[in-house]
This record gives sequence, C-alpha cells and structure tokens, in this order.
Amino acid sequence: MQIQAHGGDIYSARYRLDFSTNVNPLGPPESVRQAVISSARFLEQYPDVQCRELRHALSESMGIQEDFIICSNGSAELIYSIAAAVKPRSALVVCPAFSEYEQALHMTGCTNIEYYFCTRANGFQLMPDILDQITDELDILYLANPANPTGVLFSHSLLQEIARRCCEMRVVLVLDESYNGLLEHPEKETLRGLLEENPGLFIIDAFTKTYAMPGIRLGYGMSSNLPLMGKIQTVVQPWNVSVAAQMAGIAALSEKSYVEDVRKMIAAELVFMKQMLQRVGLRYVDSAANFILIEAPPALYDQCRERGILIRDCSSFRGLRPGYFRLAVRARRENEEILGLLSSLCRNKARTLPSYLD
Amino acid sequence: MQIQAHGGDIYSARYRLDFSTNVNPLGPPESVRQAVISSARFLEQYPDVQCRELRHALSESMGIQEDFIICSNGSAELIYSIAAAVKPRSALVVCPAFSEYEQALHMTGCTNIEYYFCTRANGFQLMPDILDQITDELDILYLANPANPTGVLFSHSLLQEIARRCCEMRVVLVLDESYNGLLEHPEKETLRGLLEENPGLFIIDAFTKTYAMPGIRLGYGMSSNLPLMGKIQTVVQPWNVSVAAQMAGIAALSEKSYVEDVRKMIAAELVFMKQMLQRVGLRYVDSAANFILIEAPPALYDQCRERGILIRDCSSFRGLRPGYFRLAVRARRENEEILGLLSSLCRNKARTLPSYLD
Repeated sequence: MQIQAHGGDIYSARYRLDFSTNVNPLGPPESVRQAVISSARFLEQYPDVQCRELRHALSESMGIQEDFIICSNGSAELIYSIAAAVKPRSALVVCPAFSEYEQALHMTGCTNIEYYFCTRANGFQLMPDILDQITDELDILYLANPANPTGVLFSHSLLQEIARRCCEMRVVLVLDESYNGLLEHPEKETLRGLLEENPGLFIIDAFTKTYAMPGIRLGYGMSSNLPLMGKIQTVVQPWNVSVAAQMAGIAALSEKSYVEDVRKMIAAELVFMKQMLQRVGLRYVDSAANFILIEAPPALYDQCRERGILIRDCSSFRGLRPGYFRLAVRARRENEEILGLLSSLCRNKARTLPSYLD
Repeated sequence: MQIQAHGGDIYSARYRLDFSTNVNPLGPPESVRQAVISSARFLEQYPDVQCRELRHALSESMGIQEDFIICSNGSAELIYSIAAAVKPRSALVVCPAFSEYEQALHMTGCTNIEYYFCTRANGFQLMPDILDQITDELDILYLANPANPTGVLFSHSLLQEIARRCCEMRVVLVLDESYNGLLEHPEKETLRGLLEENPGLFIIDAFTKTYAMPGIRLGYGMSSNLPLMGKIQTVVQPWNVSVAAQMAGIAALSEKSYVEDVRKMIAAELVFMKQMLQRVGLRYVDSAANFILIEAPPALYDQCRERGILIRDCSSFRGLRPGYFRLAVRARRENEEILGLLSSLCRNKARTLPSYLD
C-alpha cells in the first residue's frame, strides 16, 4: 500500500467515489463554473497583482477592511508565505494537523518545532494546558479550527484566550479556518471578529472547500497587522492568483443561499453518518466539520480502493497511528454506499479492535 | 507619475493599447482558450500535484526526461522556489534584470548579493569578465537570455562557458529562458541541451509569453540535478498548478505552427520597429526578443498614458536610469501607432538627448 501524502490524488488511479477530499458535496455553484469559462476571454491579461476587485468583494462579504486581506494561490500558499515572512526560530504546531504547517516551517529553516497533541483520550480536543506552551520564546503557532483531520471544533473561549496570550507574547497565531465555511454556524466559530484588536492573529481561509473549487486554487489571509501583511507581500511572487481564480472568487461570494443550503445538508448528513457508524460499531471522532475521522483496521484503505472508492489514510498525520481514516461527508447516496461497505468489511472486526488503536 | 514595479497593470486605469507586457501579440491559440473553458468541468477536483500529463507533454515536446521537469504557478514562482531550495549565502545577478530575482534572494535572507552590469557602452552585452565573478564563494547566479528588459541575446559560447564554470565552482546557474520561445530561432539559443551533462544548470521557462496566457499562470523549470529538484518540491506548496493551467499547457504544446508563424511575424516587426526608431532618431538597444528598450525623455510615460497607451517605464530596473522605456513588439497596426506617437513626441528632442542618458 502506498500512502498518499495528500487527499484527492485521483490521478494515480481511477476512482468511482472520492471520500478523500473534503469539498462541498454539491460541487461548485454554476456561477463559479461560468466565471472560469468567462475568464478564458482574458487569458492574455496579467492578473491584477493586488486582486483589488476580489478583495473588495471579500471585504464587503465579511465586514473586514480591504487592506486586512491578502489573496493567494490556494490557502496552502499562505501557510508557506506566513512562515517565510515571520522567519520563526521557534514554532508550535497543534497536532494532528495538515502536514503542510510543518513542511512550511522546515522550508524556512525553522528547526525548533514543538507540538501540542490533541489526544484520543480527550476526544482530540484542545485543552487549556496549551497556554503553558505559548511563551515569549515562541515565534509562531499553527492551529486549525475546525481541526483537520479530526473535524473537532475547539472552544471559542479557549481560542480567544490563546489569541490573547499569543498577542501578549508576541507570537503570530496562524489560525487556519479553511473548514469554517461549511460548519453549521460558521459566524459563531470564526475569530475574524478579533482581527482588529489583535495584531498577532493571522487567519487563513479558502474558497476551496466551501465552493468546491480546488481545481482553480484560491485562498486568502486576514490580519490587521499591516507591517506583517507587507512582509508577506515581499515573499509572495507577483501574479500568484490567476484571472480565473479572481473571477471565480468574486462569483462565489454572491452564492449566499447555495452555501446556507449545503451547510444544513452537511449537518444532517453528519448526524446520519455518526448514527450509522455507531450501528456498525466503528469508533469515530466527534467531528463538527464536513468530514469524519474513523478508526478501522489498516487494510480498509486497500479494501475501499479495490472497490473504486478513495478514502484518506491518516497514518501520515503526526499524532495519529495506523488505523485512522478520514471520510468526507458527501450526499446521502454516496454516504450510504461507503457506510454499507464499512458495515460489510468491519462489522465483525469492530467489536475486537486491535490494541494499537488504544 | 507613479512607477509600476511590473508591466501589465491594466487595473489601475483603463488603457487602449498595452505595450508594457511582452506576450505573443496574436493572443492565445483558440485551443488554449478551449482548454480553460473545459477545465470548468473539473473545478471540484484537486489538480494533479505532480502535473504528470503536462510534464509528459513537455518531455515529448523538448526531448527532456520527465523527472528533469517541474511545473509552477507561472515562472515567477520558480524564481522564488529555487532561491528557497538553494538558500544561498552569496548570489550574483546579471543586470539590468527582472526585479524578482533580487526580491527572491531577499526573501531567503541572502544579504550578500553582487551584480554584474551589462552596460550601455557594451550594447548591454554580457562580457567574458563575468567569469571572474563566478568563484567557489558564490552559491547562485541569476541570468536571463534573452535579457529583460534589453532583449539582448547573449553569446551561446559565452553562456556555455558560464554554465561550465558554474558547474566547476558548484554554483547553481538559474538561467531564465522565459523569452526564448518567441525568438526567431529558439532552438539555437537555448541551453536545454546542456542539462544532462551539467547538474549545476537550472533553466526556467514559461508558457506566459509564447502562448499569451499570463492570466492562467504556468511556468516550468528544468534540471538534471534530482536532489535539487527534490529540494524544490519541498519548498513548493502542493497543488500549485491549477487544473486549468495544466490543461491549457497541454493544449498549448500542440500548437507548433501557431508559434512558428508568430516567431516570423515578430522577427519582421522587430526589423520594422528598429527602422522606424532610427528614422525618428530615438536610441534603442539591439534586441532579438519580442520587445525593445528605447531611450526617450522621462515624460514619455505620461504622454503615452494620456493617449491610452501603456508602456513600461524601466527606471525601476537596477542598472538603468530614468529615460528607458520598454515597448512590446505587437502587430503592425499597433506598432505603427506607437511609433507614430513617438515620432510626434520625440522627433525634435531626440537629436538633443539629455546628458543623463550617457
């Protein structure tokens, strides 16, 4: 079995169903497809380096000043750019987490990387003892909410406290909210409201998941720290966001009801999947996001693959061991299919889960 | 007058004619537009991280092994990535040059940057004395051929010697051939043939200019140094090349006759523009590329702008002073218009060029 370092690798083999990536299961809104089609007329134009129209639309949509926003070639680019801008000597990463945080730190030559582990015993929740690790020795902290791959939503008040402490200790808090947009109540969970008062906070978000547009690459970062934003500009190549992506993003931001509808659908499907997993007898992490981390025998990946279904093997995540798999929340018929398969593969084994999962 | 750091900023104001960017004046081939339109069907798919199909097409097109090729979000991204991968302590940049080379070096924290200046007295040619600056103290050398913004084509044998010396001294030679594809005889000028024998050579190329597709962002790098290529992979974010760009690139590579036709057209227009500039009495640099650097009174930029024409003020290039402007070679009617304007603005002044140009 070859373990993929990222989800969504549908190119190594052909799959019928892709549960490995966590995008909006309804696919992109038609207006976004049309924007990409229209962008073909502007191929011979360089993109606007400053993404003015897109930043204006984001500003209107989120009630955040335009100069607090920077756009990027997918949110992954910003994970690298913020590291390159801060040049941290010392970093803290909340695990398990997207491997790119660590990769970005390595890229900048940061060798002093510490980890805060959200543990299975605590339901992969973030606990207040993380505050002890936020000292004035630290330069940067990477944290995702909801977390990936667990889908766990962290306590809003603890996050506020973390942000406050980061600010006091002059630590840049990189808060990845890429999965915020598909939560049932995104506004209640985001820390965007703290940006103005907290110059230590850098929030990353993306169009990728919310609008199902990973093919076109579009993310953005937010901070009220204008000197930091200026530094990021100097480490990012010009024209990093294509004309197609800028046009697609502007179109996406008009799709309010489309996104509200899918949020309700995902919330309902998440309840359904959890009920079914309980019935099958498979352990799962209590996700609030549009994906769910389950525990199953390591052979599950290959067993799914043989049936044309791609799932995300999470053994490459620091802080997880073999036997963790992430499933996207998709539409009912697809969810039924994967759960039916899990049921047939795992029903007997589940009651006697091997000890390495403990 | 606000000086733009890059060409192609058609977003700050509306222009009728854009001579500031140097893309194929015929615009993108129809097949490339169609590829972007088709890509809208695949928005919900992550791009192939490894760009396999595109790298295969590039490999076939150039007769270079697939694993010698890395694709990027425009060639600008690679200018940054190679610097981040090499982490040079000491660098040499051949000037005047695209400002991003220096910017990328600053990004990595390289403070020891030296310059080799191609001078007006030498027709902005590269001279053999550059070899003296390639010592074992040096880590990286940035060089573009043809050069930008002068359009000067450097001697093939001197370039070979530079590549050989870089290899001996363990210096990474970053050779930017982004404008090679629109030369009259690109195959005669490229150093691609040296890649296999020379692991110190890293060549950057782009689809941007040759296929007039700056809006979609697609470049590529070539090297036989697989450890170096591996290092670049670790500093580049995954999915940096969109599905649209990968599909557009594959389509572009089939357009052999389209590109051959435009090469002939550009060669003819370049002759025409030089003749006209001589007639007007304006000094120009002897370009072989699809753009030409002229000397004119600094007010020219605003005079053109007032008439809805965007040209590239080159005073921001290290090694140039105010009074240098770059004009793209475009189609005959547009070239006639800009030359007519230059003629009316400069005819009288040209014979008494101010002394700061000397």
